[in-house]
Amino acid sequence: MPHITLSSAEPGIRGLLRYRPETGRPISELAEVLLRGPSTLTRGERELIAAYVSALNHCRYCSASHSASAAAQLPGGMALVEQVRVDAGRAPVSAKLKALLAIAAAVQQSGLSVTAEQVAEARAVGATDLEIHDTVLIAAAFCMINRYVDGLATIAPDDPEVYAAGAQRLIQHGYLPSLEAPAGQ
Amino acid sequence: MPHITLSSAEPGIRGLLRYRPETGRPISELAEVLLRGPSTLTRGERELIAAYVSALNHCRYCSASHSASAAAQLPGGMALVEQVRVDAGRAPVSAKLKALLAIAAAVQQSGLSVTAEQVAEARAVGATDLEIHDTVLIAAAFCMINRYVDGLATIAPDDPEVYAAGAQRLIQHGYLPSLEAPAGQ
Repeated sequence: MPHITLSSAEPGIRGLLRYRPETGRPISELAEVLLRGPSTLTRGERELIAAYVSALNHCRYCSASHSASAAAQLPGGMALVEQVRVDAGRAPVSAKLKALLAIAAAVQQSGLSVTAEQVAEARAVGATDLEIHDTVLIAAAFCMINRYVDGLATIAPDDPEVYAAGAQRLIQHGYLPSLEAPAGQ
Repeated sequence: MPHITLSSAEPGIRGLLRYRPETGRPISELAEVLLRGPSTLTRGERELIAAYVSALNHCRYCSASHSASAAAQLPGGMALVEQVRVDAGRAPVSAKLKALLAIAAAVQQSGLSVTAEQVAEARAVGATDLEIHDTVLIAAAFCMINRYVDGLATIAPDDPEVYAAGAQRLIQHGYLPSLEAPAGQ
């Protein structure tokens, strides 16, 4: 049961965005730009970074929902997402994505954990400054979102189908419309 | 030296907001609502929560700038801010603010560290659901901002006067205009 009385029964971040639309809107806009806006990283790659950080933070709702979104948008599907979550260093992803995941894992610990060597390594395998920037900010943003979702003890459904359906809705409509939909949808 | 080449010499978050305005805008809007928007917590109290979490995250730029903002807006000034940073449990703040600072410290560790007892304690000394919500989100947001600022190794000036001047600018103009001002201002 959530620590506070929300205005809807929606699980995870969705109930929080609706409870406080003044903060829900900029958070949704940030997610939309970072995970779906124009980028040389694919949407699947960016969702994978979000899922990976959320798993490192043990946030059940966020890791399930962003794993489902990543799986639906990456050729390797959920098997690849699970390989990354178990051991990102050995997962069959590009050298660039592997280097960016290492930076994301450092950010999850602390911004001060990111080393010049990790950044140089990412650059050596083709990462641009903007890709490095966005990786750091995606990882940092999920350190916020995970804490927000779990710090208020929101509900995380058990059924994987809920997350798979949410991923399809997200792929079609993005992160913004959830604020406008009537409560309960 | 920052890990990536920014578009201005501005220190801390300011250079990052300008480098990527598409993400800078929602981050600034979130800060404006949380720290300066309508609330039953004073602006000084909210800046104190931001300063406290930033200090726990060892983010030099953010803890100096939000300490300066809190000090400028709280009757206890910088002495009070420093007491909170050293030992929030014994600092001369209201029982409600003390309970909210304890929740913020838990969020800094992990969302999962916030306990039902901490929330009940805050409620028992007068905290509303919205104040508890906003405290969790302020703490979570600074876990993002601190990681963003340090994960890209931005510059933190040494001179306390820089932060005191920034606090005055902030009190007058808020978190939004820095995006529009010409670089270097």
